Order: sequence, then structure tokens, then C-alpha cells
Amino acid sequence: MVQPSKSIESVRLERTRGGASGRARDWVTVEEPLEIRVAPSPAGPEASPGAPARSVAVTMRTPGEDFALAAGFLVTEGVLKGREALREITYCRSGRGPQEYNIVEVRLREGVTVDLDRLSRNVYTTSSCGVCGKASLEALEIRGCAPLPLGTLALPGALLAGLPDRLLAAQEDFARTGGIHAAGLFDAAGELVSVHEDVGRHNAVDKAVGAAFLAGELPLLERALVVSGRVSFEVVQKALAAGIPLVAAVGAPSSLAVSLARRFRITLAGFVREGGFNLYSAPERVS
Amino acid sequence: MVQPSKSIESVRLERTRGGASGRARDWVTVEEPLEIRVAPSPAGPEASPGAPARSVAVTMRTPGEDFALAAGFLVTEGVLKGREALREITYCRSGRGPQEYNIVEVRLREGVTVDLDRLSRNVYTTSSCGVCGKASLEALEIRGCAPLPLGTLALPGALLAGLPDRLLAAQEDFARTGGIHAAGLFDAAGELVSVHEDVGRHNAVDKAVGAAFLAGELPLLERALVVSGRVSFEVVQKALAAGIPLVAAVGAPSSLAVSLARRFRITLAGFVREGGFNLYSAPERVS
Repeated sequence: MVQPSKSIESVRLERTRGGASGRARDWVTVEEPLEIRVAPSPAGPEASPGAPARSVAVTMRTPGEDFALAAGFLVTEGVLKGREALREITYCRSGRGPQEYNIVEVRLREGVTVDLDRLSRNVYTTSSCGVCGKASLEALEIRGCAPLPLGTLALPGALLAGLPDRLLAAQEDFARTGGIHAAGLFDAAGELVSVHEDVGRHNAVDKAVGAAFLAGELPLLERALVVSGRVSFEVVQKALAAGIPLVAAVGAPSSLAVSLARRFRITLAGFVREGGFNLYSAPERVS
Repeated sequence: MVQPSKSIESVRLERTRGGASGRARDWVTVEEPLEIRVAPSPAGPEASPGAPARSVAVTMRTPGEDFALAAGFLVTEGVLKGREALREITYCRSGRGPQEYNIVEVRLREGVTVDLDRLSRNVYTTSSCGVCGKASLEALEIRGCAPLPLGTLALPGALLAGLPDRLLAAQEDFARTGGIHAAGLFDAAGELVSVHEDVGRHNAVDKAVGAAFLAGELPLLERALVVSGRVSFEVVQKALAAGIPLVAAVGAPSSLAVSLARRFRITLAGFVREGGFNLYSAPERVS
């Protein structure tokens, strides 16, 4: 895996602590824009890679796992449906210059068409004066999302309660910067399958989903998603798109995260800390 | 001020804590989409309010202060330059139906033109293969942002260290949900001028800036902005747009937040807690 840019960097600062002040250095999490472009497959022979790419998003992210991030973004936004639709993901190839590591091109297989307008259209807006949480949930049904099945994943409560600590222990960059979100995938035995860090909480989830997508592992019906912060509508939406039946967070869920989890039968656990947790929906998966 | 929708709501849940489980109720922060529309002033007489509005953004937000949020978003994105450009902000008036509280229309004064394409163009992208943090900073210079002056605000360190606790004490919804971001404006004496809460950290800052904008108080050269979480590029960018010379956060800054603060001479304080803090740029404002 190419590691184009570092994920943390050292900065100078003045520290005041315990009544004393002085110069110091410390690590901060790197934040850099990433532009995601989608290119159609060339109509002609495979050798002509020149079909124009369309810019679909710029996100402020922590470098690393850029291909997973781009894939995960397109999967969780409903643009990319299956692994077979993908031909390759590369960094931008500018004419003669060096490769640019802040632009990722996602090239589709020949004959694959995707609905890129979905990303510019607003999926929450369904009528002239009807944007609301209910419409946001219905938009996902229109997209083809269905409630997730029970019976694919079950976790003992005592095990669920310990997942955030296992995630934190695996967060390499957090240990040095104190300022980065994490998303981890766990199996039914509570084993950490993968951990992903990013300055943006949505990006961390996209990296987790995208890495699994690129490995051909979707839907993730036997995985639990654990996030380091709070749970918004978007985090649950991304879990739904990946088929993840359980989302656990150290922090609080929002109202719309709860509504979305209930409608699509996703187990939503919040305040998972200090040996306890709250279950807001589908408690059947926790024994 | 109209309060169209509640900011917190009660949900049922199953709580496991200290080895015991049981049904309970708790408050969660409300998250609902808000669509922001911008309408030109009518070309004809003032009485014709029918000029078409253009949808410029949908953000997932906590209801309350919707007009401040819309104004703050447009100000910090560089679209709305001055209070005099604004004619009125209203909720959407659908033909005969009830007012819709998830759509806000920002109507401009006659003769005022704004660059709405700025919001669909990507301001971070400056060349075909040149999106990067440096380009993101230069884009703000191109927009006309200049380094903020020294001498308008000074805070003793001991006072700075206590601001997050003062902010937390004023957070009404956090006390009940444990899951909402806050942005507060403070004066040079450390007095809380205003506090704003939202499920999204950027929205909380937009509400703070927008409320001050609507009150005719920009630029906020004598105010400190205190945020409850971490500091990203976007948070510092919003402070810059509002002329706020000092940003203090309970959490960590990102690399690009530090770079941005240094280039535009904004005092950036991170890890402001337990009586101490780190200063990453422009320490002259802290004595």
C-alpha cells in the first residue's frame, strides 16, 4: 500500500500547564483535502486510459487509506453497488508532473454506469417544501435499502461494553495526537478486524467500509462497527449501506440516528463506556 | 424568536450499567436536515416577494437559531459580505400549506448580487492536479482574507484556561443529552457573550457568527471563540471570516487548522482544560 503522505506531524507550541509555561513540540493530526474523481471506462480498447474523470467530492481527511476512503464514500453514498463495477483506483496522473496524492481517480469497468447526479442532487429533498427527517429515511428506502436481518450477529453485553477500549488500544495516531476519530470493525467474538483513523468521523467510517468493499467482503452482516465519538444520521446511514447490523459508540446518538437504526433494524448502542451501555434499537442482537 | 421545533427529545432505551439492565428513557439531541435557499431581491416593486429561490445547501442540524445558522453559513462561506445586503430571512412559504420549518429562505436586498457558484465550485481546487492544504490557504487570500490585527483582544492565561468550563456551564442541552457541540463567544474580560449548540460542530460556529452578523456586530475583533471539541480547518476558517482573533478548544487542533491560524495571525489554543492549554499560533494575545 502506497503511503503518500504522513498522518501526523510535529508542530512547535507554547505549553502552559500546572502554572508553568514553556516552548514544546507535539504531534498533531494531519488534515489535507482529498478530491475524489470518477472516470467512466474507456469505450475503446483497455489501453486508452484517457476518458475524462468527473470531480464528485472534496473532503478534508487525514492522508492514508485514500483508496479505501474514496471507495467507501462512493459505496455509502449509494453510487458504487458492487466490487465488479470497479476497474481501478489510482492517484491522479497529471501529464508530466509528479503524481498528486490529494486526488484519487476511481475508474469504472467498461459498460458500468453510475448515477453521479445523486451526489449533486440533494437526497434529503423530496418535495418543494418537504425536507425533514422522515423524508431522509424514506430516501434510503427509495434507494433500495431494507431492514437488516436478525440472526447474523450476536454479542454478549459484557463483550460489547469492552469494544471501545479495544478500539482505543489499537489507535496508533490517537495515542500521539489526542485528536483523531476512529472506526473499528469487530467480529462476533469481539476481535478487532480492522481499525481506521481520520480527522473526520465520517471519513473514518468510509475507510472501514471501503477497505472491506475492496476486499470483496460486503455486506458486513457479521460485523459490528465501533466509533470513537457520537453517532449521527450519517454514521448509521453508512453502516446500513455496508450491511453492518450493529453500531456502538462511546458517545451519544442523535434523534435521527435512533430513528434510522429503528427503521432499518440496526442495533444502536450509545454511551458504551465504564462497563455499561444504552441500547436504542434492535436489542435482540445483544445477549 | 420563533422556536419551530424542539432541540432535544425523549427516547426509550434499554440501559445496562453496573451489572444491571432495565428499560429507561433519556434525552437525545434532535438532528434534522435544514435546507438553505437564497433568493434575489424582486426586480420590481417591494410587494412582489415571488422571485425564485435557489437551494444552496442542506445541513443536518439541531433545530433552533435557524436564521442565525443560515446567515452564518453564508457569511463564513464568503457569500454574504455585509448586513446591508440582507433583506429578510424567513421560513419557506409554501403556497397554501403550513410553514415549513426545515427550509430557510435568505432574501437579498434589491441590487445585491452574490456569487452562489462559489458554493458549488470547490474552493479548495485551484488547478487540475493541485488540491492541497497550501491551495486551501491561498484560496482564502484570493477571497480577500487578510491576517487579523494584534491589539484588539488580550486575555490573561489564567482566564483563558477557564473559558471551556464557563461554556460547559452554559450548555443547557448538553446537560441533558451529553451529545451536542457548543460554540461560545467571550469578551476580553472572560464574560460569556453568547452560547450556541448544535449536533454539528460547524453549525454551532455558524450559529455564533450568524447571530452576531444579524445583530450588526461583525467583525468580531474583540471576541474569543471557544468550541467544545476539536479544531479543524473549517472552524478556523469560519473564525477568520468573522474577524475573530482567538480560537480556543477543549480538544486538539489539526495540522491545517494550525497552518491557517499562523498564516492569518489567529491565536489558536488547544487542549484548554485542567487549568492549562497549548498555544499553536499568535501567542501575543495571551498574557
